[in-house]
Parts: sequence; structure tokens; C-alpha cells
Amino acid sequence: MTEYSLFTSESVSEGHPDKIADQISDAILDAILAEDPRARVACETMVKTGVAIISGEITTSAWVDLESIVRSVINDIGYTSSDVGFDGATCSVINIIGKQSPEINQGVDRESLEEQGAGDQGLMFGYASDETDVLMPAPITYAHRLVERQARVRRDGTLSWLRPDAKSQVTLRYAEDGRPEGIDTVVLSTQHNPDISLADLREAVIEEIIKPVLPTEWLTEATKYFINPTGKFVIGGPVGDCGLTGRKIIVDSYGGMARHGGGAFSGKDPSKVDRSAAYAGRWVAKNIVAAGLASRCEIQISYAIGEAQPTSISLNTFGTETVAHERIVGAVREVFDLRPFAIIRDLDLLHPIYRPTATYGHFGRDPYALAGATAFSWERIDRAEALKAALS
Amino acid sequence: MTEYSLFTSESVSEGHPDKIADQISDAILDAILAEDPRARVACETMVKTGVAIISGEITTSAWVDLESIVRSVINDIGYTSSDVGFDGATCSVINIIGKQSPEINQGVDRESLEEQGAGDQGLMFGYASDETDVLMPAPITYAHRLVERQARVRRDGTLSWLRPDAKSQVTLRYAEDGRPEGIDTVVLSTQHNPDISLADLREAVIEEIIKPVLPTEWLTEATKYFINPTGKFVIGGPVGDCGLTGRKIIVDSYGGMARHGGGAFSGKDPSKVDRSAAYAGRWVAKNIVAAGLASRCEIQISYAIGEAQPTSISLNTFGTETVAHERIVGAVREVFDLRPFAIIRDLDLLHPIYRPTATYGHFGRDPYALAGATAFSWERIDRAEALKAALS
Ligand SMILES: C[S@@+](CC[C@H](N)C(=O)[O-])C[C@H]1O[C@@H](n2cnc3c(N)ncnc32)[C@H](O)[C@@H]1O
Ligand SMILES: C[S@@+](CC[C@H](N)C(=O)[O-])C[C@H]1O[C@@H](n2cnc3c(N)ncnc32)[C@H](O)[C@@H]1O
Repeated sequence: MTEYSLFTSESVSEGHPDKIADQISDAILDAILAEDPRARVACETMVKTGVAIISGEITTSAWVDLESIVRSVINDIGYTSSDVGFDGATCSVINIIGKQSPEINQGVDRESLEEQGAGDQGLMFGYASDETDVLMPAPITYAHRLVERQARVRRDGTLSWLRPDAKSQVTLRYAEDGRPEGIDTVVLSTQHNPDISLADLREAVIEEIIKPVLPTEWLTEATKYFINPTGKFVIGGPVGDCGLTGRKIIVDSYGGMARHGGGAFSGKDPSKVDRSAAYAGRWVAKNIVAAGLASRCEIQISYAIGEAQPTSISLNTFGTETVAHERIVGAVREVFDLRPFAIIRDLDLLHPIYRPTATYGHFGRDPYALAGATAFSWERIDRAEALKAALS
Repeated sequence: MTEYSLFTSESVSEGHPDKIADQISDAILDAILAEDPRARVACETMVKTGVAIISGEITTSAWVDLESIVRSVINDIGYTSSDVGFDGATCSVINIIGKQSPEINQGVDRESLEEQGAGDQGLMFGYASDETDVLMPAPITYAHRLVERQARVRRDGTLSWLRPDAKSQVTLRYAEDGRPEGIDTVVLSTQHNPDISLADLREAVIEEIIKPVLPTEWLTEATKYFINPTGKFVIGGPVGDCGLTGRKIIVDSYGGMARHGGGAFSGKDPSKVDRSAAYAGRWVAKNIVAAGLASRCEIQISYAIGEAQPTSISLNTFGTETVAHERIVGAVREVFDLRPFAIIRDLDLLHPIYRPTATYGHFGRDPYALAGATAFSWERIDRAEALKAALS
């Protein structure tokens, strides 16, 4: 459903340095929210050879052992030895976290809880399209599944010579009618032990990662593969590349298919609209598509710091709408309350649910589903009926 | 020319913490490129209360005094005293920079210089539209001009109580035909001395910053203003907010109007396609619009690490094309060479030109124009004639 005949999206694995930083920031957020749901958290992380630096602004009554959290995230990812380039047990952990500015806080905390002001100005987009069953663009969906699979076969021992750092990229070919029709190019680079040959690595990546994940009918004679094109990728993680929180915002969202407001997600409590309103935007767009009001939908929301009501709400249905555009806008305003307080309430965001969001995308999936829960509440299509009702 | 009737973009001033980080990263890049054009630089910065940490990967034969560069950037911005929250002379400067991984380097350096491989995989977009004379979307253009003006009246003494940190946001109303028709909302927050009253600040911001910058005909009775909505913004810069390189990528580009591939610009030498191919994308799109082939154009380019030829090049003209879409694509392939080597050559990117890119946008302006030069070579419309020729 894009105007492009070829569209490319990428993803990265949990061992990618920027993603290590995101996971540390969100693990810290979770640990604090678990004890103090009213905490204000903006946690930024930098990882580089032998060191993780945590920074940002946190105001809380919770006591959490930040150093242990950082170390356990790094170890959980698989960086447990200087042989693989990074070791959660022995790396340096430096804490330069400060407190939230009381001047910002006075803008956010209002007398009435309902009138809680936005934690910052900014613009956010939400998006959904019916090109996959999860109502996400296909290129980012498959880019994520490739690196997720890389982590699985690394962990379960299928390909024990894999190391944590990896990147994937999928170029999809779209037909005239806007449907995905085939895969033009797949790029996959993965960190590995020194003892695997390039030829063996390439074959194993095709057989154990690419083929099990990508739809067979989309892989043709013409599909091009670039697997570890540099030839060698033994050095990975923070040694090869400095990692920072919030540097994979297109991977985190729609792979470039939708617009982006620029705000990062990880490490931010939901009083920050960069995160909560982007989640709400996904929820709104997904419910519009699920209700059949459009097959493709993008919403832009913007805020002024300290103000509860958005400064703008706009909708784009790319000509795919089934009822008049203005009527959809009216129904959205009737069904969704986009003040920060209401978003946090309706999406139930004050829980320690964030660490799994930091890998493989914030949208189009629900890692908690296995546990019988839907903690990625912004993926619920629980307002589709209300939207239809508002229109009739 | 957007499908939205309201569209919001934001910008931030040079004293914003993320922008301090971007400027430090680009100042370091410039200092190294000035001595060693073949250097490989990926410089990431974190600023927080009393400290600037520089990190990333640099391989060079140049000797540069990094600490002095960091201090002078901070001082130049206006953070020269702990009274304003940060002091370039006395803050701590921590250097944890490493070298580029030789395994990445072997992918980039090929036997033939022309075949230089892309420094990373990734996707980039370029954009242009005829809605302003600089062929940029109007909302980001005016958001930038507001914060640029804030810096000017701070420096020239017109409003001497201003401090370096500021943010702007503009919501534009578009007419049915896609032309900007008025300003719905302006948000402006600026750091200030404690001795100015909120009422005086608001009046001065309207008179000296907003009115001189925004087109009078767009400011109506209905225009809403949010000026320092938190009420107080004395604490600013890195004390109030941790700053990181590459965290303002939408401000840096098209304010959200165009898609984004996710890669940051600042601190990266042009062997990194995140930067050079995004610049080339702007150049291509701008020349297409300047040649009258479309009034709005977006290009997506993607690369595999170590490969010279892009893995995909796609064009979107949003139905505004004046000749058949496939013919424009053909002309682009004929006129533009998008291998990293060719981009660096054609846009002449191996010079210390980057520090001014780090503030007020990488596109739609040319700060060097005053000096009689056009160092923002990606803004040249020097291929419009060639595009037309290729089509006839
Ligand atoms: C190419 S590096 C970024 C560039 C780096 N800052 C530099 O010095 O050029 C970006 C990502 O590519 C991946 N990577 C690292 N080494 C690689 C290699 N030898 N081959 C392919 N990909 C690699 C890692 O996921 C890394 O985080
Ligand atoms: C609101 S802060 C970011 C949030 C922060 N990390 C926190 O602890 O909530 C983002 C930016 O807003 C601006 N800012 C800081 N203090 C402010 C204030 N009191 N009023 C309005 N804007 C402010 C600065 O430009 C700052 O970089």
C-alpha cells in the first residue's frame, strides 16, 4: 500500500549496541515503575568498549540497584565474556543520572490529575495498514523476524557459533495494486565466532534464518542476498560501535514506511508523550484499519509542554478510506481521549512492561501474549466497534 | 502539498542538549577532516550536568586537541558559566573514543577507490517540495527560523535575558489545494534569566521573535500561542536534560513531512551513507522539483555494508509528476551516480564543512552563502538541466 514499487526496511538484534542501550534504559524504567508508578524517568545509556554509562533524569522514591540491572541486561543478551567483546560481569558501570528539573515537573503535575500536562512539546505519528495480518508494513515485519530468529537459533544451540550483534534489511517489491509481491533483496550481517568459514556461515544463515522466516512465495530466482558482505564480523557489540539509547527510532516503529516525529521511546516513563502518544497513535490507527474505515492510516498528534490537550490531531488515510475522511476524524475525537492522563489510563501504561518493547519493534507484536496477557495494550483492537458505532 | 490539513513540525536551538552533542560531534569531525580527509570518524557525544563525554570510533593520522574543541563549542554556544547551568571552561571532558573496527574498514576500502563500499547498511530518504522558495516543507522551515532568531536576539543584546536553550513548534494549516494557508499554533519555550517576568517574556518573544519571522498573513485572530507554557525555564541545557548526538534526526531533516531512514548525521564522515546518501537524496529530490518534473518528490535509497551500488533506489512523486514516473526514475539513474565514492566526489564532501549543519537543519539553507561559497553542495540545483536533457 505504499506509492513505492520497492521499499526497504531494516532491523537490528538485541546485541546491537544501540539496542543494548535501549534495553538498559527500559530495564531501569521497569525496575523503578515496579516500585513507584508515579516516578519520572528519562534514562539515557551509552555503551562503548568495556563501559556502560547511564544518564538522564529520574525522580523517584524507589530504591533500585541500578548497577545490577545494567550488568544483568548485558549478560542476558549474551555479552558474558571479553571473548565476545563485552562482559556484563566485569565492565565498568558509570552512573551520572540527575533529577527531573522541578520547572518541568511544575508543568506536568497539575492540580487535577486529569489535566496532567504533556511532559514535553513534540509531534508523534501512529500508523497501520492491512498489508500484513498484524496490520504493519511488511518490510519492517520481516526485517524484525530475521533478527529475532538469529537470536533464537543462537540461544537454542542450532547455530552455536552465532554472537549477539546482527542487522537485517529487506527490500520488498510491491505490485501495482500496492500489495507486497516478492522480495528483491535481503541483507543480513551477523556477528560470529572466528572458527566458522564464510561459506558455511552464509549457507547456515540462508537455511536456518532466512528460509524459515521469509514467505517462500516471495523468494524467487531474482532475489538477491547479501550475507555478511564485509566478509568478517567477529568484533561486534560496543567494541565495534558506540551504542546510544534512542538511536534506532525507525527500527522501533514502522521501518520508515510511516512518518516519524523524532522522539525516542526507551527509558521514558509515559508522562513523556514521545512514548505514550506514539503508542496511542498506533492504537488509534490500528483500530481505524481494523474497523475497515481505511486500509491504510497515519495519524499525527502534537503537544505543547505542560498542556493536556494536543495542539493538533490530523489524519491521513491516503485515499483508502471507506467513509468520508472528516467523519473518521470526528469519530476519532469522539472515541479517543488523547490527553496524557487519559492515554496512560486507557492503555494502562504505569506498569513494568517496557523492557520487551526495546527489541524487535514496539508495534505489531505482543511478547506477553504467550503469558496470556496483552501488555502491549496499544495493539488491542478494542475500539473498532466504538468507532463504527460513532459513525452510524 | 501534504495530505494533512494540519501539520506540525518542531525545532530546537543550538543550546538544546541534543544539539550541543551534535555540534561537538561535528566540530570534532571537522577538525579531523581538515588535517586528514581520509579519516574514518563516527563521533558520539553525551552531555549531562557538568560533563561532556565523547565516544565512538575514529581512525586518523591527524592530531587534534579534542578537549579544546569540546570546550570551545560549549563556550561558543553561550554556556560559559555555572550561572547558566554549564561552563565550557570548567566542565569535565571525558574521552572514550576507540578505533574503527578493521573488519568494517575492510568492507569499505576496496582496491578500486571508485568501488568504495558503503560504510554500513541502511535506508535514507531525500525530499523536496515547492511549497517554499527553498523547496522545503513550510512547518520545519519556520520552526527553524524561530529558534535561529532566538539565538540572534540573544547574541546581539536585543533580549539579553535570553539563555541558550530553546524549542519551537509550528502547526500549519493547509488549504484543499495543498498550499500553506495559515498558522494554527505556535509553541515556543526559551530558557531565560531569573529576573524577567513571565508576562514580559511572553510579550518580548511575540514581538522580537515570532512576529519578525512568521509571515504576517499567516498569523490570524485564530492563531494560538503557547509561550513558555511551563511558566519557568531558568534551568536549561544539560542540567535539565541529558543530550546525545543523533537524537534530533527529524529536526535535522524535514520536520516529519518526509519519511526517515533512521540514521543520524552529526559526527559521521561521508563514508557513512547515513549521512552522505541522505544528502544526495535531498540533492536528487531538489533537482527533480527544480526541473519542474514534480512539485513534490521523495526518494528512498538503500545500501548493503561493503557494497558500492545501492541495493534499491525508489521514487515517490505523490501524483504531482509532470512526466511519467518511470521516465523520471530513468533520468535519475542516468544523471546521478549514487555509489558512496561518486556522492563524495560530486558533492565534494571531504572538507570541514559540517559544524554549521548541526544547527537549524541540514537542508534548505546554506550558511556558507554569505561567504560567497556553497558548501552545502547538496542544495545546488546544478543537475536540473541534465535531468531535463535526459528526458528529451
Ligand atoms: C558498521 S557499524 C557502524 C559504523 C562504525 N561506527 C564505524 O566505525 O564505522 C554499525 C553496525 O554494523 C554492524 N557491524 C559491526 N561490524 C561489522 C562487520 N564487520 N560487518 C558487518 N556489520 C558489522 C554492527 O551491528 C554495528 O553496530
Ligand atoms: C522537557 S525536557 C525533556 C524531559 C526531561 N528528560 C525530563 O526529565 O522530563 C526537553 C527539553 O525541553 C526544554 N525544557 C527544559 N526545561 C524546560 C522548562 N522548564 N520549560 C519548557 N521547556 C523546557 C529543553 O530544551 C529540554 O532539552
